Amino acid sequence: MADYKKMWEELGMDLETHDALCEVLPIAFGDTYLSQENRPENMAFYDFVISEIHGVRPAELIAHQKKGGKVFGTFCVFVPDEIVFAAGAIATGLCGGSQFWVPGGEKVLPKNTCPLIKASVGARIDKTCPFFRIADMYVGETTCDGKKKAWEILAEEVPIHVMDIPQMKREKDIRHWAEEIKDFKAVVEEFTGNKVTEESLAEAITLMNNKRKALARVFECRKSDIIPISGKDALLMMQIAFYDDPARCVEKANALADELEQRIKDGVSVFPAGTKRILISGTPMAVPNWKLHHIVETSGAAVVVEETCTGTRYFENLVDESTSTMDGQIQALAERYMKCNCACFHKNTGRIDDIIRLAKEYKVDGVIDVNLKFCSLYDIEGRSVESALKSAGIPVLGIETDYTDTDAEQLRTRIGAFIEMLG
Amino acid sequence: MADYKKMWEELGMDLETHDALCEVLPIAFGDTYLSQENRPENMAFYDFVISEIHGVRPAELIAHQKKGGKVFGTFCVFVPDEIVFAAGAIATGLCGGSQFWVPGGEKVLPKNTCPLIKASVGARIDKTCPFFRIADMYVGETTCDGKKKAWEILAEEVPIHVMDIPQMKREKDIRHWAEEIKDFKAVVEEFTGNKVTEESLAEAITLMNNKRKALARVFECRKSDIIPISGKDALLMMQIAFYDDPARCVEKANALADELEQRIKDGVSVFPAGTKRILISGTPMAVPNWKLHHIVETSGAAVVVEETCTGTRYFENLVDESTSTMDGQIQALAERYMKCNCACFHKNTGRIDDIIRLAKEYKVDGVIDVNLKFCSLYDIEGRSVESALKSAGIPVLGIETDYTDTDAEQLRTRIGAFIEMLG
Repeated sequence: MADYKKMWEELGMDLETHDALCEVLPIAFGDTYLSQENRPENMAFYDFVISEIHGVRPAELIAHQKKGGKVFGTFCVFVPDEIVFAAGAIATGLCGGSQFWVPGGEKVLPKNTCPLIKASVGARIDKTCPFFRIADMYVGETTCDGKKKAWEILAEEVPIHVMDIPQMKREKDIRHWAEEIKDFKAVVEEFTGNKVTEESLAEAITLMNNKRKALARVFECRKSDIIPISGKDALLMMQIAFYDDPARCVEKANALADELEQRIKDGVSVFPAGTKRILISGTPMAVPNWKLHHIVETSGAAVVVEETCTGTRYFENLVDESTSTMDGQIQALAERYMKCNCACFHKNTGRIDDIIRLAKEYKVDGVIDVNLKFCSLYDIEGRSVESALKSAGIPVLGIETDYTDTDAEQLRTRIGAFIEMLG
Repeated sequence: MADYKKMWEELGMDLETHDALCEVLPIAFGDTYLSQENRPENMAFYDFVISEIHGVRPAELIAHQKKGGKVFGTFCVFVPDEIVFAAGAIATGLCGGSQFWVPGGEKVLPKNTCPLIKASVGARIDKTCPFFRIADMYVGETTCDGKKKAWEILAEEVPIHVMDIPQMKREKDIRHWAEEIKDFKAVVEEFTGNKVTEESLAEAITLMNNKRKALARVFECRKSDIIPISGKDALLMMQIAFYDDPARCVEKANALADELEQRIKDGVSVFPAGTKRILISGTPMAVPNWKLHHIVETSGAAVVVEETCTGTRYFENLVDESTSTMDGQIQALAERYMKCNCACFHKNTGRIDDIIRLAKEYKVDGVIDVNLKFCSLYDIEGRSVESALKSAGIPVLGIETDYTDTDAEQLRTRIGAFIEMLG
């Protein structure tokens, strides 16, 4: 990483502890990513982002702030970035995917909390992530017990607005979500001093739809019998999409998709013909959580799609752009976001339909349903997922894991046996 | 217990497994309850209820059904019994407080689920509790992750209506809860075939308010320096109130309160003068979970109040009876129920105010904040509770436990040391 010491110092970071993170990350990335063969050339951009992960993008955010702009830190695919960008502000994802931050979270949260929440809180209170220092306001949501209460702890540190995500998906719940988006717009307008207009919102909706379309193009290529990109690389693109500049995300994902489409025409696959195709469903994998993909793809199979928040849940369904009134736009946003099938909803049968549809579209041989340890929602729902997949004749393996290496060998054995069983 | 074999058989219960439960319960009750000295005479009623726990009340519910009446099974203090009784139906609490049912729940739920939920699901699917067999419809709510998903599993077994409890306490959330109550009323009317009228609802509101007042009278007596009833006995009354006939509950609780008031006048305490007074805050203790009270009260202290769903959260705050329109009554219900401070709410500062207020009103020497293992909500909130109590100069001990005996000795040691520390 280039020298960003001064910037980190000015952000009030704990430089000494942060140095330790900066030392291990390139090694982990090298072992996991750079060891892959025949990667798409356009992955060079994403490799660069990781190599400068706490430098380049933070510096951009700070430059934006120096011009009077605001930065909102988000944790969930339900928070509508459109509103933030329409107010001339920047939204950046803040989820923590590293075990490095977990002990910090455990200072204030029970150990029985999922690693994603512990790492997110730890990254903030230990002062070891610039993104968590930069964000002027955090945006939380009421998706799960752990997050609902974690916001109360983070609120001691930083301004936080919490959006009340409905717990069901009835007509009135979509109306409720539209109201929450309206309230969020008022908060963002007040905090930035900028008005969200029909025009600026229409522009932001188009921008975010373009981002969804670009990411979807890359995923579309993964449906091919020629697998032009590894699951690990696709995951990396998604992880970076969660916090990078959206216009750049569109450009880079489209360039990658161009290359992948050409690869398919040229018959260039990163896996030997006949490699077993895996769908991973379940909880999100925030950067740098590459654990499961790495195990699968070094055990002889390929991950061809993720039904996760760092997968299809992030980009499927577009916001309707045909309406131009503020109420209409907000309703369109509410409808699009409420199509996302998170296990936080009571009666989430749509998610099972999604998994079976994706399994067919991506011609998968088997599904690995993963939940981060202590995520009750996905863990309990796992039973329905497994039973529906079995009924549909799709092999499935249920896995619970955290960010540590302690279960890696055991997972490798179980996943290896599962892949072998696929024939 | 009298011979209810035929009734249990007709309910489709697993008699053999149920016999095992019937064998252990009287022993546990004898050891925990009947060993106490100088108990109020009016506890005889509650002892009788326990001795016939799977017989007398179930038989009454079945008699009601034979006359064409419906029975609704509930799991939470947020479900407004008023609506059920106003439709000529009966509401009965279904929570499971015994380790006996936990392994059954673990057949379909992750082990990392709180014992209350596991026991509730296990009691149903193992067919070992008549109440779970009798209820024609279950009423769930979206209070926590575990319950939200458990209803999906129970829905495979029995009709279930889920009420969407708001996740915050803003003005619009109270409106939302009023709407949910209105929807619940429609469901109850449809299911029972009976109309809820302004008159029948007013009657039910008065009945439930009388129940709250009667329970509050017993608690009022616990504020006295003369402690006329043990915490264990008060807990038993509360546990039975959750599922007994409400009119009988009023009568029996008032009779008990009469006796306790007389005891205070006569200076009859069940504890030696100077016994340390404990407030227990946290998660509910469903029958027959007497574990913590028993440890505290056999370690030299007295439990004088519970800030739990089987304590003050159940009866504090009355429903406004001054309004006579349906909309007004429903709004009054919504307002009363939303005053209850469950950890399921984001920003639950009212609960901390409650605990400090109760600590003063009941003149407690220390607080034991308990959460059932894997209840993230109360576990995370425990940090705020402990810190607020420390600031207020009130000694506090945080405890996490389940229904097993495995931690009993360790709890006894910690609680003993805490009581000793109180001086």
